[in-house]
Amino acid sequence: MSSRPIIPHSAAPTIGVFDSGFGGLTVLRALVARLPHAHFAFIGDTARLPYGSKSRRTIARYAVESAQFLVREQGAEFLVIACNTASALALDAIQAAVPVPVLGVIEPGAANARASSRTGDVLVVATDATVHSHAYAAACSALGLRALEKACPLLVPLVEEGWTNHPVTDQVIRIYLDELLAEAASQDLKPDTLVLGCTHYPLLRPLIERAVPAGMKVIDSAESAADAAVLLINGKNETISDSTALSGGASRVSPTAKVRCFATDSVEKFERLGSRFLGRPVGNVELVDLGG
Amino acid sequence: MSSRPIIPHSAAPTIGVFDSGFGGLTVLRALVARLPHAHFAFIGDTARLPYGSKSRRTIARYAVESAQFLVREQGAEFLVIACNTASALALDAIQAAVPVPVLGVIEPGAANARASSRTGDVLVVATDATVHSHAYAAACSALGLRALEKACPLLVPLVEEGWTNHPVTDQVIRIYLDELLAEAASQDLKPDTLVLGCTHYPLLRPLIERAVPAGMKVIDSAESAADAAVLLINGKNETISDSTALSGGASRVSPTAKVRCFATDSVEKFERLGSRFLGRPVGNVELVDLGG
Repeated sequence: MSSRPIIPHSAAPTIGVFDSGFGGLTVLRALVARLPHAHFAFIGDTARLPYGSKSRRTIARYAVESAQFLVREQGAEFLVIACNTASALALDAIQAAVPVPVLGVIEPGAANARASSRTGDVLVVATDATVHSHAYAAACSALGLRALEKACPLLVPLVEEGWTNHPVTDQVIRIYLDELLAEAASQDLKPDTLVLGCTHYPLLRPLIERAVPAGMKVIDSAESAADAAVLLINGKNETISDSTALSGGASRVSPTAKVRCFATDSVEKFERLGSRFLGRPVGNVELVDLGG
Repeated sequence: MSSRPIIPHSAAPTIGVFDSGFGGLTVLRALVARLPHAHFAFIGDTARLPYGSKSRRTIARYAVESAQFLVREQGAEFLVIACNTASALALDAIQAAVPVPVLGVIEPGAANARASSRTGDVLVVATDATVHSHAYAAACSALGLRALEKACPLLVPLVEEGWTNHPVTDQVIRIYLDELLAEAASQDLKPDTLVLGCTHYPLLRPLIERAVPAGMKVIDSAESAADAAVLLINGKNETISDSTALSGGASRVSPTAKVRCFATDSVEKFERLGSRFLGRPVGNVELVDLGG
């Protein structure tokens, strides 16, 4: 990463954030908390989700269309791909297609895990599609970490049902973690860090932190990506204070940052659920047509 | 419904079954149990699911493409739309597009509820998209029933996780049913029948039957659709024996029926999970390209 600011610190940069759905609003939330004077344009390609079941070529085409919309039509000077599947499978294609810096969520999450782990063994929980891509394992391996990944397909529906502080969700988290820890033990791993590799999971962070073994650190890839974006944008190696952490119910999101949200379909669900992810009202979600 | 057989009883008709995913394999299972000498072609439009978040026009276009594939390329003489969303939003379009009889899942489920209910008040559990369409309420209302619908968005992920006989699933079902029964009571309804309005739910039937109040009958729209198809195909008003019921683990599916399965993407998940829905191995799922 360059230490030279990409965008002048005094300016109010426009930052584009892209996801296949609206889970990436947790990344937007972390960005808004860190860059209260920036402008943000978020697009959720809700008409074509889920990306997880589609081919790399199709995902790249879809993601490039959204990225181009953010750069050409919203004037984004910097892009954050707040979607694990697109980060895993289409980051190169997006970087090649737009003339602005593009950051994904996976490498920042892995870098934070590297900074956190003393044993060199980390656990990753994510959706089925992200685990299948093994993108976190590859990014962790490139940093000298051993990573064990586990798909937790019930967690996204539980978050979308609003059961973020529900005994059923607590049980499901403990079942998944028990299975993951047993698998780690069977492979002689000594994990001390758990990476939340899905943009929905920050809403479960309080439950997850209560469920992990004592001393295990929980790394949120949404916050990691926002930290990395701030470093790139400001060119400063400043530590982000804990006061901007996403966890818990307290919202410290700046009310002054200008945020526009777009979706390609399903505006109703986006508007209904999105505020919980963003930590403030998403307001009017504008419908855009990116074609079939 | 005509009493004249549409297809000669002695022939081995080819029956096409369509779903946006593979949940409709429960409908195929019920059909195979009732028509052991028929040939079946099943297509899951997995590349373009979920249909629930898409517009009526888009759903109709997708569903017509799958229906035409079954009729033109697989020689289907009869179609069953084993997809609640497509049944709700695209049945007319499909019927207009293909020269064979087409049956959906919603009207047979409502008709069975009408036959079952003494009070005239019924409950319907389904996905968010199906409940939003109010297709069951409309079909029930047309038969003089009052229907209260409830979206149960966690049940499909629980089935797909394989937790069909799991204490967490039991709790979730009881939470949803308690909410639904409380809502019914607040509206002065006296429901005595519960319609399973999603093709995934037959796998939860044993848990659901244990959770409903004593005396409440559970109607499975997958079985109802299969019964209606048999009546249309055979032109006979024979009662389907309970021995072909889908509930429980015992499979009575004929091993002789010829079944070919197609998908537009995600063959891996289809093959991995499909057998539980079909009650026998789905075998090799063939990939077809219906275009963007």
